[in-house]
Amino acid sequence: MALQERGIRTRRLILEAAAEVFAQSGYEGASTTAILARAGLTRGALYHHFSSKEAIAAALVDAQTQALVAPERPTKLQSLIDLTLRFAHGLQHDPVLQASVRLTVEQTSFRDGKVIAYQRSAEVILEILRDAEARGELLPGLEVEDVAQLIVGAFTGLQLMSQLYTNREDLTHRVAVMWRCMLPGIAAPGLVAHLRTQLRAGGLEKAE
Amino acid sequence: MALQERGIRTRRLILEAAAEVFAQSGYEGASTTAILARAGLTRGALYHHFSSKEAIAAALVDAQTQALVAPERPTKLQSLIDLTLRFAHGLQHDPVLQASVRLTVEQTSFRDGKVIAYQRSAEVILEILRDAEARGELLPGLEVEDVAQLIVGAFTGLQLMSQLYTNREDLTHRVAVMWRCMLPGIAAPGLVAHLRTQLRAGGLEKAE
Repeated sequence: MALQERGIRTRRLILEAAAEVFAQSGYEGASTTAILARAGLTRGALYHHFSSKEAIAAALVDAQTQALVAPERPTKLQSLIDLTLRFAHGLQHDPVLQASVRLTVEQTSFRDGKVIAYQRSAEVILEILRDAEARGELLPGLEVEDVAQLIVGAFTGLQLMSQLYTNREDLTHRVAVMWRCMLPGIAAPGLVAHLRTQLRAGGLEKAE
Repeated sequence: MALQERGIRTRRLILEAAAEVFAQSGYEGASTTAILARAGLTRGALYHHFSSKEAIAAALVDAQTQALVAPERPTKLQSLIDLTLRFAHGLQHDPVLQASVRLTVEQTSFRDGKVIAYQRSAEVILEILRDAEARGELLPGLEVEDVAQLIVGAFTGLQLMSQLYTNREDLTHRVAVMWRCMLPGIAAPGLVAHLRTQLRAGGLEKAE
């Protein structure tokens, strides 16, 4: 157990070091040598967890999917909104998540990993939308696949702008604006007024 | 006049060469030497137009603003929708525009130029939204500044995903989905049904 915990901590240490090195040198410019120097680890410790720079990048991308957890809410749409607001909050504070998103935005040789990141995000959102549809929470006739792709794409661009303008400080506001503009075109009419586009107090508690 | 035309052509030649070199080597990796080799120009010809790599990048960003021209339409919202659809179409085909957008998305030392690109795009859109508001085309109480920022951000992310998945082939579809989902939250209720989210035949004619 102690060994396993140490393993998890070492893994996180590597991801944090990689996040810093990727932020500084970009993906192409980063080397495993620089990452292990930053983490203060031996090459052996690194390769125990990751076989290559690509494997580290893939794990960073995984961190993004893991952050996409839908909290329990009275409606599926509220759960989806809160998922995006929590993800925005995570992006403001977590360097690993920041590195993860940057990897999916830039043109690098890490192409396949990027596609996977977008696909997984879209799949998580699509599943929630399908549940929402089954419960009658959506406007009839909506193409939920298209809407899932729209939410992922719009969020991606909003966080880019927010990063540039305010180092992501205004990101949750931008996401709230997205929902306020999109909900009337997505949600069943009676539901729109009942959906919050701001995180409620305690809205960042761990997802159930 | 012939001299001036040659100047315009040379300038375009440099921008196209720069677009290719930036696409291949990224902004940081690109050099003016590589750009003029690609363009087949002397250093003198290059410096007649641009003093540095940064100046070339700034001109590429300008190309983006120049492509944001609102066509005459019966409503300002239709004009705005068609502007984004035309821009999407331009992005599918024009390597200079592609390089321009990539410069605004990636984290490089070209930070100020990026901010300018987003600001100008948001200003163009905000002006159209204000006109639309004055004509009663918008839902009352809308924060038009926020909506302008949302449109720029959402478009930016959609084109990133579209580029990754289909080399931008599905970009006009993604933009149409954005409008279908957002118009009910932006446009005056009576107007929504009258707005087209696809380019009509001849919709790509030069803006008046």
